Amino acid sequence: MADKKELRIGLIGCGFMGRTHTNGYKRVNDFFPEVGYRPVLKTVCSRTEEKVQAFADQWGYESIETDWRDVIARDDIDAVDICTPNSTHEEIAVAAAEAGKMVLCEKPLARNVEEGQRMVDAIEKAGVPNTVWYNYRRVPAVSLIKHIIDSGKLGRIFHYRANFLQDFTINPDVPQGGEALWRLDKEVAGSGVTGDLLAHCIDTAMWLNGGIKDVSAVAETFVKERVHQETGEEEKVEIDDACIFHCHFDNGSLGLFEATRYARGHKALYTLEINGENASLRWDLHDMNRLEFFDYADEPEVRGWSSIHVTEGEHPFMDKWWVPGLSIGYEHTFVHQVADFLKSLDNDEPCSPTFKEAQETQKVCEAILDSASSGSWKETGVEW
Amino acid sequence: MADKKELRIGLIGCGFMGRTHTNGYKRVNDFFPEVGYRPVLKTVCSRTEEKVQAFADQWGYESIETDWRDVIARDDIDAVDICTPNSTHEEIAVAAAEAGKMVLCEKPLARNVEEGQRMVDAIEKAGVPNTVWYNYRRVPAVSLIKHIIDSGKLGRIFHYRANFLQDFTINPDVPQGGEALWRLDKEVAGSGVTGDLLAHCIDTAMWLNGGIKDVSAVAETFVKERVHQETGEEEKVEIDDACIFHCHFDNGSLGLFEATRYARGHKALYTLEINGENASLRWDLHDMNRLEFFDYADEPEVRGWSSIHVTEGEHPFMDKWWVPGLSIGYEHTFVHQVADFLKSLDNDEPCSPTFKEAQETQKVCEAILDSASSGSWKETGVEW
Amino acid sequence: MADKKELRIGLIGCGFMGRTHTNGYKRVNDFFPEVGYRPVLKTVCSRTEEKVQAFADQWGYESIETDWRDVIARDDIDAVDICTPNSTHEEIAVAAAEAGKMVLCEKPLARNVEEGQRMVDAIEKAGVPNTVWYNYRRVPAVSLIKHIIDSGKLGRIFHYRANFLQDFTINPDVPQGGEALWRLDKEVAGSGVTGDLLAHCIDTAMWLNGGIKDVSAVAETFVKERVHQETGEEEKVEIDDACIFHCHFDNGSLGLFEATRYARGHKALYTLEINGENASLRWDLHDMNRLEFFDYADEPEVRGWSSIHVTEGEHPFMDKWWVPGLSIGYEHTFVHQVADFLKSLDNDEPCSPTFKEAQETQKVCEAILDSASSGSWKETGVEW
Amino acid sequence: MADKKELRIGLIGCGFMGRTHTNGYKRVNDFFPEVGYRPVLKTVCSRTEEKVQAFADQWGYESIETDWRDVIARDDIDAVDICTPNSTHEEIAVAAAEAGKMVLCEKPLARNVEEGQRMVDAIEKAGVPNTVWYNYRRVPAVSLIKHIIDSGKLGRIFHYRANFLQDFTINPDVPQGGEALWRLDKEVAGSGVTGDLLAHCIDTAMWLNGGIKDVSAVAETFVKERVHQETGEEEKVEIDDACIFHCHFDNGSLGLFEATRYARGHKALYTLEINGENASLRWDLHDMNRLEFFDYADEPEVRGWSSIHVTEGEHPFMDKWWVPGLSIGYEHTFVHQVADFLKSLDNDEPCSPTFKEAQETQKVCEAILDSASSGSWKETGVEW
Repeated sequence: MADKKELRIGLIGCGFMGRTHTNGYKRVNDFFPEVGYRPVLKTVCSRTEEKVQAFADQWGYESIETDWRDVIARDDIDAVDICTPNSTHEEIAVAAAEAGKMVLCEKPLARNVEEGQRMVDAIEKAGVPNTVWYNYRRVPAVSLIKHIIDSGKLGRIFHYRANFLQDFTINPDVPQGGEALWRLDKEVAGSGVTGDLLAHCIDTAMWLNGGIKDVSAVAETFVKERVHQETGEEEKVEIDDACIFHCHFDNGSLGLFEATRYARGHKALYTLEINGENASLRWDLHDMNRLEFFDYADEPEVRGWSSIHVTEGEHPFMDKWWVPGLSIGYEHTFVHQVADFLKSLDNDEPCSPTFKEAQETQKVCEAILDSASSGSWKETGVEW
Repeated sequence: MADKKELRIGLIGCGFMGRTHTNGYKRVNDFFPEVGYRPVLKTVCSRTEEKVQAFADQWGYESIETDWRDVIARDDIDAVDICTPNSTHEEIAVAAAEAGKMVLCEKPLARNVEEGQRMVDAIEKAGVPNTVWYNYRRVPAVSLIKHIIDSGKLGRIFHYRANFLQDFTINPDVPQGGEALWRLDKEVAGSGVTGDLLAHCIDTAMWLNGGIKDVSAVAETFVKERVHQETGEEEKVEIDDACIFHCHFDNGSLGLFEATRYARGHKALYTLEINGENASLRWDLHDMNRLEFFDYADEPEVRGWSSIHVTEGEHPFMDKWWVPGLSIGYEHTFVHQVADFLKSLDNDEPCSPTFKEAQETQKVCEAILDSASSGSWKETGVEW
Repeated sequence: MADKKELRIGLIGCGFMGRTHTNGYKRVNDFFPEVGYRPVLKTVCSRTEEKVQAFADQWGYESIETDWRDVIARDDIDAVDICTPNSTHEEIAVAAAEAGKMVLCEKPLARNVEEGQRMVDAIEKAGVPNTVWYNYRRVPAVSLIKHIIDSGKLGRIFHYRANFLQDFTINPDVPQGGEALWRLDKEVAGSGVTGDLLAHCIDTAMWLNGGIKDVSAVAETFVKERVHQETGEEEKVEIDDACIFHCHFDNGSLGLFEATRYARGHKALYTLEINGENASLRWDLHDMNRLEFFDYADEPEVRGWSSIHVTEGEHPFMDKWWVPGLSIGYEHTFVHQVADFLKSLDNDEPCSPTFKEAQETQKVCEAILDSASSGSWKETGVEW
Repeated sequence: MADKKELRIGLIGCGFMGRTHTNGYKRVNDFFPEVGYRPVLKTVCSRTEEKVQAFADQWGYESIETDWRDVIARDDIDAVDICTPNSTHEEIAVAAAEAGKMVLCEKPLARNVEEGQRMVDAIEKAGVPNTVWYNYRRVPAVSLIKHIIDSGKLGRIFHYRANFLQDFTINPDVPQGGEALWRLDKEVAGSGVTGDLLAHCIDTAMWLNGGIKDVSAVAETFVKERVHQETGEEEKVEIDDACIFHCHFDNGSLGLFEATRYARGHKALYTLEINGENASLRWDLHDMNRLEFFDYADEPEVRGWSSIHVTEGEHPFMDKWWVPGLSIGYEHTFVHQVADFLKSLDNDEPCSPTFKEAQETQKVCEAILDSASSGSWKETGVEW
């Protein structure tokens, strides 16, 4: 440890994502001893002093800040990690980049394409290392999908389908806005399930199956009004509660995507399936250590969907953890992304998904929302 | 048995569906002794004498015909069962109805709305008993879904999704047309997966969740040319290999449907899921004796998706078969429909789905194909 | 059909098993047209005239008898099918064999080894075709297991485990004895779950994995007294409610078996698993169309348990039924056994399991009961 | 953090278990901020200096030792954590207790009852806090089982079954002995799968279902000779490769247990099922975030096995981690045990399982091995 370089982290935001990222920083060297950097929890920032102090105490940050500008102004910060609501991403990221800081930004990159583009421009101008926390790519089973596809086992792809089903806003008494529920406030979040959930599905999809060319979408807001926590008033809900779209990928395959917060019985059911000429794959987040694989090359008599318990040394990331048969969980995806970010610094290479890649997902999200409001197909303009 | 009335069947077509229906007729009285009718296998008709004679011998039909008009002309036939390709449904059904025969027609009702409407008109004018073989309604687990929904356990419905995934035409060497593959010939079938597979999903969906108001669809033909079995030439494939649509139901819920013959690893994977305010249900045809049920009313600590093995005496149709834990299969759905058809004669009531109901499914299919070709939303005009 | 030889059946007993066998006779020619025989439902026999007449009417038997001796005495009966309680098997089977009838006997063969041996002796002396209805061998997935094992894919076998879990006697108010519950009456049944459930597991196990050499067992009667339906009195329950045993197979593998009627939530959960050096297999009756297969020869990265939907044309018996993806059920196992019995007549070969093979299962059952009562290991004396 | 008391850890052994425990110490305060103690990684000890230094560097131990006696002699150590092979447990634990250290010992407690008893005596005489790392109790789903049983939902228990299936020693070329494979060396391990795997199953079983009264077992060593890593010679394998036993629990239920390292396709498949009069539960380690629950009190029509995704705030330990639907993994069980150990210090209460409880498991293990070698039932002498 002594010979590792320090990577001094300034974390902005100390909510749920602040916890997942911090856990990633704290664990990475225990399990990825080969990386050249050692994250140091230099400071954490949030507007409410009492809250941020408690967070710093619990997690071991050396100091606190209550204005994110002060984090960026500090000389002892190498990397700024943005875990604040979407409406603040642009301003912080641009300032951090201009100050020459590395930037790690929680997804989605921004509220819209316009903001995202300014962020990409600033990052590229500054030439600083950067990444966006689309963490699900680094579920070992999902990384294994990528590996299997790259091996050519699937052949021509016909279908890609994914959904992300939750049920946490069914109750109309759930309010909108405020610290806990900004995801329901369009001004802060930019969109509802499209940016929150579909963005994950789209990032994975384009990573695995290439660019999405055009989309046709429908969105719905089932509960039309909710009390806003900042005003105390019933206000119109402007985000999309549910959104469905189909699309063409650049490779000619058909895509089908759905996200909702109104699927009773599902908490974080991100599922994906890809059907190729010669093989198919499917996965879901509720059973994240398993991957199902159908290979037409198997003997007809014993051909079936194989349930792979992705916990073997041969599987992505799994040689770092325990022994075959023993599972890892959600939080490990963030440890993996930290590890890959640190390796990218070692090797002076980009850490995917970069801001630039995340902006392509942003384009798809915007095309979806446009299509949903216009009722017609939209080109995405994605370059993958 | 002696005191049962005869229902003298004239079966037209002796392919796969001829077998499933015949099996239904032969078994119904063994398991549903309470019905007042006894099907009698009077005649079976197909153009090729040798083939139809072999079928009659194997299954026990009393006679054969090689021209369907001769079936309809016979006085000793009470009910005409149409198992021929879609392009012949209208002509046979209309003639049968005009001759005062009961008519049982394989799905889809017709190639298009126009044909379907003439069939409905003829049937209604004749006032004859009729039904269309959307057999999946009578999978006990699917009938149980209907029962649970009707009980009010789900509350307001938010989402309905279904797909029907097959993989049997991935190989481009599979030809189109001819007796075995008329489903790939647009002239004969009317459409591809839309009429063949989505029609099943739509019939079940409207039965369970009410009318579909409008649709937005995409269709694809992955293999553009195939040898036509009648000409021996490579010809353009005009049917839809895959079709996806989303829709609004009259009750405000969002629907999502997909069918394809290019989903490697799936043979007849008809799945459906419905998410309500208070409960959700899902089912698939590959594990057809199971129903999954999530009930938010359960205690939080033990709340989960319950896998119901639908083989108990309390479950629809299952008191007729074996004992709890012992499965039935695909063919039983046809026995159930025959039983219900015979009961409908006993009670002088319609046997759902009637031609009129099946025509509503036809309207949705046509709207789907229109939407897919135009790229815009289409109203279905369904009245459910 | 006209050119098939008649096989004139005399069915003795018209309970649950009478129905399953009759259904087998009635359906076999529809699906196995190649067999040379045609079962004819000549007569059915049961002590209560009204009941047997109703059965004959429903299922189409030509006549009834109320004394089984009259069935055997009839010249127009080729085969006697014994579906009566276990205590009657010996007397009927021996008489039928001596009269030169073919004999099909419901399992278990007898109440004990002594009875079974007299049955085998009589059958062999008479030289008549015979079989015992251990129907689960002919579940297509179970037949496929046999095929895979015979192919050598498993290598040396280490473990075999099976259980048969039910829950239908948990309620202490369930009585014992009488027509419906003779399985709880030791005098009639011979034993409890050992003869009723374990016998199935043992027959399959020895068919798949060879002879069982010795056993160590424990049995339990959880509800000590139940009202006897014939006396109306609380009487001691003498059958085994639950029985567990482990054993050595002749091939050196370890076996583990359990049966109970006190496993809440399981109806007919017959499961089996076999672990070989190179591959493993598992199956259960509740999802009877699926077989799970693990093959160590697969590439490490994608190695997993494959869920084979045993509905393809390549799978045992399945070319006779529908198309890939479409399930069959419990009753089909009896159709398959009838088909194989008829083929065995065509070919003048034994139809496995014969009385002689079923007697080996009887020996294991008796060793189990002996071991359970003595608390020590017992040799079975099985010759497989 | 500043106000927490230090708990200065001396870890003895730095193999696989050294990693899991260390990870537990490092993470506990991040997720259980309410505990009054803060583990400090004071020293780690192993015989090979180079190896232990590398471990200390990677994990952040302040110092190293190469003789465990030096750890015990240090004044700055509060708690000794024993992660060394079984043959060393007694000596270290007794010395540590006599030195007044808290003792945390990896399972099984000892090689046999005699050693275990001396350890219990020493611990009790010293009166020091102690615990044994039977970590699977603290899988949230397993803790939930305990909670459901304690709620009375199951009623009278009839059956308990568990197995622990692995496949890692099938290859006869795997050697025995040495640092990596001491589990195959009887002198060091005491037994094979009995102490390694069945001990886990027994600890959980008695915690959930009370004492095991007597056992009847069979054991097998499939590969009779393996190269010993210390001698380089083929030597007789003396441990049990596989072990099966059935038993009576004090509450009258029947138990059935199996462990093996020869079940091809299973890596760490610890499964358990418990059947009560009114409800049943089952769980397996490969899908450790799920619990299956059958409740006979549910309405008959919708009764089934409920798959509970044990990731909700209502579930044991899960309010400490992420949000509903997001899984945790194997390692979290150790964090939970550390948390409970620290709480037990706060409250001056024992942390279950204590040495005394673990000794009861030891008694069952010894009875199993005795029964397997004698072929007869053995009383365990357990007092639960």
